[in-house]
Amino acid sequence: MTKAVNPDELATPRYIRIDPRDNVAIVVNDFGLPAKTRFPDGLELRDFVPQGHKVALVDIAEGDAVRRYNEIIGTATRPIFAGGWVDESRISMPEARELDHLELATAVPAAQPPLEGYTFEGFRNPDGSVGTKNVLAISMSVQCVAGTVDYAVKRIKEELLPKYPNVDDVVALSHNYGCGVAINAPMAIVPIRTLQNIAKNANFGGEAMVVSLGCEKLAPERLLPLDTNGSIVRMQDEAFDGFTAIVDSIMAMAEARLEVLNKRQRETCPASDLIVGLQCGGSDAFSGVTANPAVGFAADLLVRAGAKVMFSEVTEVRDAIHLLTRRAIDEEVGRALIREMKWYDDYLAKGEVDRSANTTPGNKKGGLANIVEKSLGSIVKSGSTAIVDVLSPGERIRKAGMTFAATPASDFICGTLQLASGMTLQVFTSGRGTPYGLAAAPVIKVATRTELANRWKDLVDFDAGRIATGEKTIEETGWDLFKLILDVASGRTKVWSDKWGIHNSLTLFNPGPVT
Amino acid sequence: MTKAVNPDELATPRYIRIDPRDNVAIVVNDFGLPAKTRFPDGLELRDFVPQGHKVALVDIAEGDAVRRYNEIIGTATRPIFAGGWVDESRISMPEARELDHLELATAVPAAQPPLEGYTFEGFRNPDGSVGTKNVLAISMSVQCVAGTVDYAVKRIKEELLPKYPNVDDVVALSHNYGCGVAINAPMAIVPIRTLQNIAKNANFGGEAMVVSLGCEKLAPERLLPLDTNGSIVRMQDEAFDGFTAIVDSIMAMAEARLEVLNKRQRETCPASDLIVGLQCGGSDAFSGVTANPAVGFAADLLVRAGAKVMFSEVTEVRDAIHLLTRRAIDEEVGRALIREMKWYDDYLAKGEVDRSANTTPGNKKGGLANIVEKSLGSIVKSGSTAIVDVLSPGERIRKAGMTFAATPASDFICGTLQLASGMTLQVFTSGRGTPYGLAAAPVIKVATRTELANRWKDLVDFDAGRIATGEKTIEETGWDLFKLILDVASGRTKVWSDKWGIHNSLTLFNPGPVT
Repeated sequence: MTKAVNPDELATPRYIRIDPRDNVAIVVNDFGLPAKTRFPDGLELRDFVPQGHKVALVDIAEGDAVRRYNEIIGTATRPIFAGGWVDESRISMPEARELDHLELATAVPAAQPPLEGYTFEGFRNPDGSVGTKNVLAISMSVQCVAGTVDYAVKRIKEELLPKYPNVDDVVALSHNYGCGVAINAPMAIVPIRTLQNIAKNANFGGEAMVVSLGCEKLAPERLLPLDTNGSIVRMQDEAFDGFTAIVDSIMAMAEARLEVLNKRQRETCPASDLIVGLQCGGSDAFSGVTANPAVGFAADLLVRAGAKVMFSEVTEVRDAIHLLTRRAIDEEVGRALIREMKWYDDYLAKGEVDRSANTTPGNKKGGLANIVEKSLGSIVKSGSTAIVDVLSPGERIRKAGMTFAATPASDFICGTLQLASGMTLQVFTSGRGTPYGLAAAPVIKVATRTELANRWKDLVDFDAGRIATGEKTIEETGWDLFKLILDVASGRTKVWSDKWGIHNSLTLFNPGPVT
Repeated sequence: MTKAVNPDELATPRYIRIDPRDNVAIVVNDFGLPAKTRFPDGLELRDFVPQGHKVALVDIAEGDAVRRYNEIIGTATRPIFAGGWVDESRISMPEARELDHLELATAVPAAQPPLEGYTFEGFRNPDGSVGTKNVLAISMSVQCVAGTVDYAVKRIKEELLPKYPNVDDVVALSHNYGCGVAINAPMAIVPIRTLQNIAKNANFGGEAMVVSLGCEKLAPERLLPLDTNGSIVRMQDEAFDGFTAIVDSIMAMAEARLEVLNKRQRETCPASDLIVGLQCGGSDAFSGVTANPAVGFAADLLVRAGAKVMFSEVTEVRDAIHLLTRRAIDEEVGRALIREMKWYDDYLAKGEVDRSANTTPGNKKGGLANIVEKSLGSIVKSGSTAIVDVLSPGERIRKAGMTFAATPASDFICGTLQLASGMTLQVFTSGRGTPYGLAAAPVIKVATRTELANRWKDLVDFDAGRIATGEKTIEETGWDLFKLILDVASGRTKVWSDKWGIHNSLTLFNPGPVT
């Protein structure tokens, strides 16, 4: 962590106003500032204001708009005087934005100049795709076999993997689907497509195998439609004389694949071969000020370099959708954005909730008053380029540039769906902190605050908090992050979750019922 | 496996008619019987009939009822002659039974004579409950911490557990809930109650601990409401200087609990201290003929001994509900049964499916034409005693006797919910075969067919198939199973899933939306 700034200067009371037209700003200093604190511009706090929480810059009358990002994040429920704490209870959340009359493709950003010459060391596959890792994936058509696959994976790691040093890992793609579910429900397409596509992730080198039980609803051939020959172990196959024989068969199939994967070598690939997923979790008010702008800047660089980049999380873009439909590259993409928002509105309504179910106690503790404010900070990750495509949950990414991959905001469901969409490296921003990690692709964890980055020095990979303290600009931080992405994709830098081996399970999005 | 019967006699063509009024029977012989086969009573097969599939005993006209268990399992879609294969396509499934005019408590079985003197060696807890295992459970308030808990559990098993030889295992109660979910949705009560109650399972000795992130929606205090002092590690706690400190804290808390658990000793307890869950998965046409009747007989013995026993799986009782409401001990329990059926009908309808979504390709291959036939075989597990109580998903069991614990039929969701209801040992029947196992409680796997029991000799714990071949009676088999239950509960006999350590993850039932 650079510590070039004078500590006295850091202790100066400091707030950040995002847009000159905002009537609130957020307090930067660690642990907040007490009442009577005077800022350099003369503003004096009337209340204690915690770090990341909003202070009124001018008097705001009851019913007046509270503006941040030059957008209305709510209206004042009572008069708030300049210097007062604009806490959650003083803001009434706006109604959900109507979706039928949004501007489509009215502010398509001009293409930025191409960025040439940036490369990474990746594993190129026969189909042309490029992985950032070299992983043997063992998928499964049903959860029933998960315990058996875990047992086999443990033995494969102990007995076989040491013989194949070019292979990074063996990963069981465990999940809770395949049987005991309404496999013909209209929305079953989502978990099925996710499982189909995740096995095609470039990090698996086209060598994923499937373990099946035999009586399940999800036939294993649906997971590997192009390769039914020799990539499926069916436990109920009458040739298997019990558990030992089944495990032996899984291990033999795994070893054949390890031999192939072991021949993969990293080679220099243009940055355009990257597929990067962007996500946030445990957001705070700094997310939209430090980490997400830095990620957005790095995303712009990736797009300029020709890479495929995706952002997600429907409930965290729903309240900023009017900003995104304008950025859609054409009206069709704009309509696709609206289609995904409507689908999710309906899905939530069936469960008798709405998009306000998204925010967490941690978000609010971190200064985010409601989902509108959270969303405005969340979409900053997507940078400033045109939105070129929209994916329904679990669809594979199609285009270079910035894609909206519709997913729930749940960290693990989003991560799983981005893996299915083809993501080979993820950038994950957090204000509160999370030990999140994926076995299938490296995850760069970006902290919104330096205090978190320092405290979680062995979990956080990148500190964007220096933007808030003025030690670094968004541009500098974005370039640093872009270079870290290339280093991690090349295997030169290992992320903390991979160093510790802390990886979360896949979590499928199943909007259909269980039976 | 007893092999007392003459092999020639086993080769004799054999069918089983459940009720004298049935017009179909199922073929017993392994791998089925060819056309022209003549049974000892003179019936001759007109078609090849696979094992477990139905043969018409008399001519059945188009539109006539097909009867099994003396219940209508459908109507003939075309004429079927005596000796013909009554395959799935020849049976039209009845409409779902109307729920508003069922008989309630009209055929309450008389109490059977108490069964005295049967005991097991269990771990008695301070609150009087008795476990069958001595397990340190590490629960979590949110999925974000699962990778960290997995890391800690691995170290606890390697570094601490060997010092506490009376403790059987350390189990992470991983799940996909806690954040990224609509925590205030009406049905959020189900997963929350499940997590609350599972930590109270008697196998954990009242010593479960919780790992929390800190910003999640599900506050960890909700999981341990009676013990907020010293049983929760919050990762985001500012006292923790990174991952190493967090893991150290989890290990220290675990060690304090291992010291307490290590003092638990097995003692002789009456069979009435058992809480047994009954489940089936991968059912076939023998399920209702061999394994489930044997389980039902053993369940009657458990009930007579004063134990708490539960059966579950709403979609597998829905079509036999008229038989259960009559057996309800009073009208209130009968109405509670109907309430759970209606709730599930609505839940499935929201997903645009109905109870017919339950059956699997494996069920059909095993001879079950539809969910009606499957249900009639499934409820046989519940034996012949009165149904004394009904639990909504995840509620704790209250009464001695046979309880209906409403759950989905999904093996892992049912197992998880039965653990939350207090189950300390599970009996699981299967016709197709499954390697299913739970870490928190022993699972006795019962095969419906001897062929499966022999083939999966190192996965199946108990062979009920000898009932079909006439080698054993239901009564004999039921007594054998009852004694095995006492042996497994005492730790004298280890089930196969525990010998191999193959355990499936918990799977929560979350009828509410994710966000």
